[in-house]
Amino acid sequence: MSDEIPEVVILRLPLYVRVLSQLESRGIEVASSQVLGDFLQISPALVRKDLHYFGRFGTQGQGYQVRQLKNELRQILGLDRTWTMALVGVGQLGTAILSYGGFQQQGFHIVAAFDADPARVGSRAGDLIIQDVRELQETVRSKGIAIGIVAVPAAAGQGVADALVASGIRGILNYAPFRVHVPPSVWVRDVDPVVVLQSITFHLKAVCGQRPVASLALT
Amino acid sequence: MSDEIPEVVILRLPLYVRVLSQLESRGIEVASSQVLGDFLQISPALVRKDLHYFGRFGTQGQGYQVRQLKNELRQILGLDRTWTMALVGVGQLGTAILSYGGFQQQGFHIVAAFDADPARVGSRAGDLIIQDVRELQETVRSKGIAIGIVAVPAAAGQGVADALVASGIRGILNYAPFRVHVPPSVWVRDVDPVVVLQSITFHLKAVCGQRPVASLALT
Repeated sequence: MSDEIPEVVILRLPLYVRVLSQLESRGIEVASSQVLGDFLQISPALVRKDLHYFGRFGTQGQGYQVRQLKNELRQILGLDRTWTMALVGVGQLGTAILSYGGFQQQGFHIVAAFDADPARVGSRAGDLIIQDVRELQETVRSKGIAIGIVAVPAAAGQGVADALVASGIRGILNYAPFRVHVPPSVWVRDVDPVVVLQSITFHLKAVCGQRPVASLALT
Repeated sequence: MSDEIPEVVILRLPLYVRVLSQLESRGIEVASSQVLGDFLQISPALVRKDLHYFGRFGTQGQGYQVRQLKNELRQILGLDRTWTMALVGVGQLGTAILSYGGFQQQGFHIVAAFDADPARVGSRAGDLIIQDVRELQETVRSKGIAIGIVAVPAAAGQGVADALVASGIRGILNYAPFRVHVPPSVWVRDVDPVVVLQSITFHLKAVCGQRPVASLALT
């Protein structure tokens, strides 16, 4: 097992957990690397390589124990506990995030919400009272919040990220359409459906038979 | 230039476009691979390797022309045109997607919305009248819709994906927390903030000093 696990492998681990949960709910006890690879749209060899980073889960020719592998991967990912989160920005997007049930179901609890707009501060959003963003640092520390969610316009994104980092937060889920700069000890992930769409269109453009990529090379 | 561009490179191209746009808006005309790499949190060598797939953009020791590179990458990604999309599922999530301004700004237009719930069909959602999902195929064909957005509960996800594929759609943005199966000619990308969070916690768990990954290896 290597200490240097490529980030691309770590990004796939939650997908393994999801697929294994689906298989488990269908009563399937053992899954081959072929089956797992089909779900993740990667090769069986890559599945074996991915999982080998974390130990010898499978037995040659026998496949993986679905429930055991799921539980181990959940533990590796830190999903065997709950996580607290602070939301910054309670506009339209932030409100949708607060009302999204998927976080809580998976053990991610938004325990504080902040905004810079005095018109919003003090009003109720779900179970929370929206706080002034100037209280961010104190609240994050007193509640021991682990993860920050940035749901502010692009122009405010870096300032909010800086405030989260200053408050000691090490993980940021960034919805602002902006690449934020953080120290290497902080993990930022962007949630941006537009960026996702923009990597789909690369393929659609190609399949639609419009001018091939090769002709765009600058020589 | 290679025909076999790794998917991970394609996924980074929209991020280059975003960073280049940010640099351009700040009046910066030339950027080194170091600067681009800092934004993307990858090495300058990887930046050069990524961009080399698409031609010789940079000049040794002189960096990249910001505007030119941005425009070329936009063209490569198919962003120099507009794209039409169909939304399936107009519940809480679908409604938030419809009201999200980011798609339209970047040339992605939702031109039809569908739901299976008779209580929703026929009512207005933004500029659209919600249609019965049974009209999906006909509408996608008559409007020449390129991309489908799946915003239904997990249990309905595969059925909707199948219907989109049957209607001729080649690109799917999937918000359902479920891995959908599609033919190899169709490109599916998941938008799932929970999966994203789950890859952050891997790192937080490690930095929090709780039991190290190495001890989890099954031997």
